[in-house]
Order: sequence, then structure tokens, then C-alpha cells
Amino acid sequence: MKILILGGDGYLGWPTAMHLAAKGHEVTVVDNYMRREIARRTRSEALIRTPNLHDRAELFAEKTGKSIEVVIGDCCDYRLMSRLLADKPDAVVHYAEQPSAPYSMIGYDQARQTLDNNLGATFNLIWAVMENAPECHIIKLGTMGEYGTPNIDIEEGWIDIEHKGRKGRFLYPRAAGSLYHTTKVLDTDLLHFYARIHGIRVTDLMQGPVYGLSTDESDLDEGLLPNFHYDDIFGTVVNRFLVQAVAGVPLTVYGKGGQKRGYLNLKDTLQCIELAAAHPAGQGELRIMNQLTETFSVNQLAEKVQAAGKQVGLKVEIEPIDNPRKEAEDHYYNVVHSGLLELGLKPHLMTEEVLVQMLNTVAQHKAAIDEQKIFPRVRWRS
Amino acid sequence: MKILILGGDGYLGWPTAMHLAAKGHEVTVVDNYMRREIARRTRSEALIRTPNLHDRAELFAEKTGKSIEVVIGDCCDYRLMSRLLADKPDAVVHYAEQPSAPYSMIGYDQARQTLDNNLGATFNLIWAVMENAPECHIIKLGTMGEYGTPNIDIEEGWIDIEHKGRKGRFLYPRAAGSLYHTTKVLDTDLLHFYARIHGIRVTDLMQGPVYGLSTDESDLDEGLLPNFHYDDIFGTVVNRFLVQAVAGVPLTVYGKGGQKRGYLNLKDTLQCIELAAAHPAGQGELRIMNQLTETFSVNQLAEKVQAAGKQVGLKVEIEPIDNPRKEAEDHYYNVVHSGLLELGLKPHLMTEEVLVQMLNTVAQHKAAIDEQKIFPRVRWRS
Repeated sequence: MKILILGGDGYLGWPTAMHLAAKGHEVTVVDNYMRREIARRTRSEALIRTPNLHDRAELFAEKTGKSIEVVIGDCCDYRLMSRLLADKPDAVVHYAEQPSAPYSMIGYDQARQTLDNNLGATFNLIWAVMENAPECHIIKLGTMGEYGTPNIDIEEGWIDIEHKGRKGRFLYPRAAGSLYHTTKVLDTDLLHFYARIHGIRVTDLMQGPVYGLSTDESDLDEGLLPNFHYDDIFGTVVNRFLVQAVAGVPLTVYGKGGQKRGYLNLKDTLQCIELAAAHPAGQGELRIMNQLTETFSVNQLAEKVQAAGKQVGLKVEIEPIDNPRKEAEDHYYNVVHSGLLELGLKPHLMTEEVLVQMLNTVAQHKAAIDEQKIFPRVRWRS
Repeated sequence: MKILILGGDGYLGWPTAMHLAAKGHEVTVVDNYMRREIARRTRSEALIRTPNLHDRAELFAEKTGKSIEVVIGDCCDYRLMSRLLADKPDAVVHYAEQPSAPYSMIGYDQARQTLDNNLGATFNLIWAVMENAPECHIIKLGTMGEYGTPNIDIEEGWIDIEHKGRKGRFLYPRAAGSLYHTTKVLDTDLLHFYARIHGIRVTDLMQGPVYGLSTDESDLDEGLLPNFHYDDIFGTVVNRFLVQAVAGVPLTVYGKGGQKRGYLNLKDTLQCIELAAAHPAGQGELRIMNQLTETFSVNQLAEKVQAAGKQVGLKVEIEPIDNPRKEAEDHYYNVVHSGLLELGLKPHLMTEEVLVQMLNTVAQHKAAIDEQKIFPRVRWRS
């Protein structure tokens, strides 16, 4: 298949590109390096220095003989998007969004940038598909955060409602906890509209927080590793805890630590994208799948990292801190996530072995850890 | 009260401004004349020439001794919005949106303009309130079109869902039928987020199509009439039918004509805004009310106009035409709309007398009717 990856420089974009290229697909990646720029400005650089996209693609070609085409450009530029879609890819994987919840909560400028970039990229993608490649399958990365933490089971995107004796099927109601997550709610609304009215085909993957460093391809060379953030801006919670364990600082649990979320291993993100691409949504369909394999509370995660630390001789402490976010710290959370399993997903679970392996990789970069990046610098205002 | 009206040049904005000023409120209107510009470009000028805002405000002052402050500017300009909110109005009435569904469906440029303008104005308003006047009450004009035509009763913005033995309260799921209506869904999502997390106070009025020309203030002088569109771009269905009746062309019912919607008289829009302002939403509350007084199918509307035409000696024909939109033409439609009645709304219903009065006003401008503007020029594409 011919696959275009928007946001191909990201934590997920780059491993996805390598994975699909390794499987023999014809892959093009696009990125404008916005995340690198924000990381520099907010002092949130990744733990391990990642080469730029052209250099990584060259290194990948050396190691595997497979090529990845690199385009540096902005998905908010409609002429670029139109040109890329005129090449009629079979699928577009859309990761090209400002991905940090705390960043989107700093102030007007950051919120505005998040709204403009995320909605702008999604809108341009929709139109570039409609005008150039109407059969192209859009694989969009949503987030489990779109749903928030409702008091009823979270279904896969849609819900059957019985009300006053009548029935209907609806998009599952959303209530996100950051402006970043809210932009993904808006994305879903836009995709819902254009799928219904103009017949675009969409898979919207509601992904939980991802952890991990290792994929078959990134293991080939350190220069092929995904960018790995442990800071409060871009670092996802498991990755953050692992770095804290290695640094010898207490794991920073926000508030009561009863916040439950669905997690998945980076390797499973790659599998899910591949499965979605191999089984496209129908024309006019907005197919939504919840992309996670296990559910844990933050306290459970901290205990798992503590136990793994013990295995490698690290004494890991856990220290609840004042929650910088506004979120429920103790809530019901039960998520249906059978769609991807039915397509064939074989989960890589968060075993002690997996965490130990990650601790060992992080330990090799211990000298690069900057403790100032670990503690929350952004507070949701009242 | 000190009240700021965004989009004060519009069909609803201007009569609202006069009404609130007449009641003794301190009123400022803002507009960038976008609607006039689009009307010119799409050959959709209003039936009756409306003076510009400064001239109308002068005329209104002459007739009533009351002043309306006029600011010409763009709500997508954050510096302007910030400056206006620094004046700490008690309420902001937000009409500043590209209001035409067909226009938003023409192509990329028009859709993009609608998305950027509508989201941009709402986002700027939210932030200008948060940063300058956090107690200011946002009165936002949404649309009944946000809900679409679900198979269950339409509640007032929120719905209690019982699912698998558990219960929750949610924003009522939306499914709009045009990009314009979808931007209002996105607006609601943004307001929902910032009300929950940052405590802004919002009334979101889900309004049905409005009809009418006459208000206590617009009746004082022809130069104070609201802009009255009968074209396929800006004309709402009742106004369009009345002009067709006067022009002697058949009423253009789209498709089967079974499309039901909730309607209200222009006078009731003014009442609703006044009632909302007098009873503000609480801090952190997103209060949603459905703003309509009666529900009719398009066929029923056509028959009402036909009957009113007979009263004034017009032979009115009805001619179903191919539906340019994608919408259900025969569907369930039952809307809860008790919120505004409970606040004290006294409905002006669509009586034959009201329609006859409008026919007489339109008849005075018969020579200005351009039949080319009556038939749909924009088709929802497949």
C-alpha cells in the first residue's frame, strides 16, 4: 500500500513509518518539526538526542535497505496537503497534532496554536482527500481523553440510547479535560460530519497513553529510537515514572492517584495502525475503536515501576503531589475495546520484564536526565 | 446593564441592539461587515437596502434619543476583543458568525472561512472574558441544527443516559447537517470545556429558523429594518416563501417537504436574549435552552403562506423541487423547549395576521425582488 504519515517525526509517527516501510509499504512522512520547536522553547527536550527526519530515513535505509520518503512541511498549508493527496495514497495516518495537554493549558497563545494547528491539519486533510483521493482511508489518532471519565461504560465511539420509549444511535458524548483533548473532540465532530455528508472513509483511533521505546526497527540502532520525553509537557506518565526511578527522585503521583486510564505498548500502536490500514473503514463510515490493552490507576503504575526498580536494584519512592490538573482522582472507568482485538491485535502487556528492559535503556542515558523537567510546571487555572 | 453585541449588523444583531438600548441598557455593537461582503460576492443582497451601522445608530438616536455605540472590527482580532472586554460588560451576546449553511457548503474556501471565523470568534471571546471580565455572562447563539433530526426527543442541551445499569448526565449528542451548523457544534464543545475547567458562565441558545421584519424599534423607520434576505444563501425559509409569494413564483419546497423544524418570530429572539441577560447562567455553568416556539414541516409552512397569500389576493403555488441538501425529508421531531417559557417568554405565534403583515411589507418592495436569487445555487456534494 501507499501510505502517507502526517506528523512522521513524532514519538509514534517515526516508529510507525519504519514499521510500515519494513512491512513493504511505500511510505512518505510529513512533519514541520513543531514538536521539536515547542520542546526547545519550553525546555522539554527528549532524553535521547534524535537525528532529524532526513538523517533518520538515511540511517533506516542503511540498516534495512528500505526507503522512507521525507517531506518537511506544514499540514496547515493546503497546497502542500493537496499535492500530497494528489499522489493518491491508499491510507493517510494523521498524527500531525500538537500533542501536549499541559502545553495547551499554558495560556492564550499556546491554546490558540493547539486549536489552529490541530483543527487546521484535520480540516485540510479532509478536503485534500475529498478533492484529490476520495477513496483514501483516513486513519486518525484520537484519544481516550475525548471521553473523559463518565459514570457509565465507555463504548467504542458510538452509543445506543433509549430515551422516553424511543431509540437512537449516537456519537458517544465527549467531555475532555484539556484544550488539547478538546481539539480532538472537535476533530471527531468534523470527521463525523464529512463522513456522513461527503462519504469520506475514516478510522478514528481513541488511544490511551502509550509507553515504550523498543520496536523491531528502533532496536536496530540508537539513532532510530523514537523521541522519548520524560518532562511534564510531552512525557506520558509511564515514561516519566521510569526516568524518575532511574534519576532516584520519587515518582510524582498527581493527587490521590486513583485516576484510571487505558494504556498500551508502543509496539501495539504500530500493530493497531497496521490492522486499521489492512481493514479500511467503508466509504462514508466513521469507524471508532478504543486503542488500549490494559487499564491501571496512577497508583498501580507507580507500584509497578517501583517493583521493576527493585529487580534492578533501584530504591524507588512514591510521592503524591498536589494535582496540577483539574480531573477526577477517584472515578468509575470501564472501557470497551474489542474492535482492534477482533481485527487481530496481539497485546504486549506491561509486564515487569518490559519495565525492567525500559529501565535498563533509560539507565544508559542517566547522565542526560534533567531533574528540573520532571516536576509539573503548568497548572490548570481556576 | 452594559451589553456588548458581537455581529451587531446582522439580521438578529441589529434588532437586538435597538431592543436592549430601548430598554435602557448601555449597548455596544461590533461587526466587520463580513455578511455584507459575502452577500455582495455571492449576489445575495438583502431585499431592502440597509444603511451601515453608524448611520443606523444615528437614525435610531434621532428617533428614540437612545444611543448605541458602534465599533467596526473583527472578532477574530484578539486585541480588539480584549480591549472590548476590558470595559467589563455584564453580558456579551455572540452573533458574530458566518450564518449561512449553503455558503459553508460551496467549497474549501467558504468552508474554511466559516470554520476560521466562527471558531476564531468564539475562542477569542472565551479568552477575552477569562482574561478581562471573568464574571461576564456569555450569551451565545447556537442553532437547533446542532442536534440534527434524531429519532428520540431533543432535550435542552443535556441528556440523562442510563446504560448497562449505570447513569450519567451528558451533553446531548450532536449531528449537524452543514459545515456551518457543525461549527456551532464545535463552539458548544469549546464553551463546554472552558465552563467546566475555567468557570466561565454561558447561556447557549439553540435557535430555530427565525422569521419576521417587525419589532417595536424597527417599525419606527424603514432605515431601522433588519436586513431581510430571501435568497438561497442567507434567506431563512419563511422569509423566502413570503418573497416568492409576492413575486408570483411557486414556493420552492425542497424534496418531500416533511422536514420539521422549530420556528420563532424575530420579536421572540429579542425577548429570549433579554430574558437570558436578566437571568444569567451561574459561574461555571453551560446553560442550554432551545429557542423556538412552534414546530412545522416545510409543507405546513408553504400551506400557511399560501393561505395568507389568499387573504391579500395572491395566488400562491407550491412546487416541490429536487432537494439540494442532504437531509431526512420525513422524520421524528419532538423538541423540549420549556426553559425560556419558564423564564417568562410570551410567544408571538405564526398567525395568518403576522404573515399577512409581512406580505404587505414585502409587497412594498416587490420591484426589488430578483428571481435569480430565489432558486438554490448550492448543492451538497456526494
